[in-house]
Amino acid sequence: MEQRISLITLGVADLARARAFYERLGWRGQEVEETVFFQAGGMGLVLWDQDKLAGEAGLNHVRSEGFRGMNLAHNVRSKSDVDAIIATAEDAGATVTRTPGDAFYGGYAAHFTDPDGHAWEIAYNPGLPLDADGGLTVPDFGLM
Amino acid sequence: MEQRISLITLGVADLARARAFYERLGWRGQEVEETVFFQAGGMGLVLWDQDKLAGEAGLNHVRSEGFRGMNLAHNVRSKSDVDAIIATAEDAGATVTRTPGDAFYGGYAAHFTDPDGHAWEIAYNPGLPLDADGGLTVPDFGLM
Repeated sequence: MEQRISLITLGVADLARARAFYERLGWRGQEVEETVFFQAGGMGLVLWDQDKLAGEAGLNHVRSEGFRGMNLAHNVRSKSDVDAIIATAEDAGATVTRTPGDAFYGGYAAHFTDPDGHAWEIAYNPGLPLDADGGLTVPDFGLM
Repeated sequence: MEQRISLITLGVADLARARAFYERLGWRGQEVEETVFFQAGGMGLVLWDQDKLAGEAGLNHVRSEGFRGMNLAHNVRSKSDVDAIIATAEDAGATVTRTPGDAFYGGYAAHFTDPDGHAWEIAYNPGLPLDADGGLTVPDFGLM
C-alpha cells in the first residue's frame, strides 16, 4: 500500500448547505451525481450524503454529537492567516470550538467544526514548514 | 483559505497498536512526543491520543461505535491491487466491512476499519485516474 490518501469523504446531512459552507471559505467544487468534489492539493475532498457513505462502507450511520474522532488541519504561514480564516469560517457558519491562541507545539491555532460537525484546525506551526505549493513534508525528526 | 489539507489526525486509543497496524500495511512513520507522523503525498497522516485530540479541539470525546461520519480512500491502479491491499489489511488486524466487489460508480472497491474504527476504502476507479506520482486530480466534469 503506497503511502498516500486519494480522497477524504465527509458525510453530510444537507449537500447544498455543506457545499455552500466550503465555497464561502473560498473553495470551488464540482457536483456530480449528488456528490461534490473539491481538489485539495494532490487529493480530493468529497462531500456526500452521510447515510449513503455509511451504507457503501458496510457500516451503520451513527449520528454522533461532539467529536468524531479525527480532525483535518489546514496549515498556514502566519498567525494572522489563522485569525483571518477563522473569521471567514465563523461568518460562513462554522462553530468555533477553540478561538485563536498559542498551541502546545509552539505554534498558533484555532479550531472549528463545519455544519456537519467535522473538526478542522487552522494552524501556524513553524515546526512543520510548508512547501512553495502549500504541500507539507514531514521533517526528518532524527528518530524512528 | 487555500484549497488544500495539511494533516489528517486520527484519534487513537493505543498509539503503539495503531502505528503497528499502519506499518504492517507498509507505511513508515516517525514518533515524536507520543504522536506518529506518516508522510502521505503532499500531506501528513497523524496518529494521536483521541482524548488529547478532542481536548485540543475544544470538543468532548464521544466514543462512537460504528460509522464516524467520514472515510479515507486509497485509490489504486487495478482491481488486483484492491484485492492485495485488503488481504494485507485483514492480516494486519483490519475489520473488513465490505469485501472487494464492483462499486456503484463503475469501479471496484472494498472497505475496512482500522483498529480504532476509522473507515478506509481501497478503490480502483477508472473515472478518477491517478497521476504518475499517485496524486489524484479531480477531472473537469464539465459542470459546476
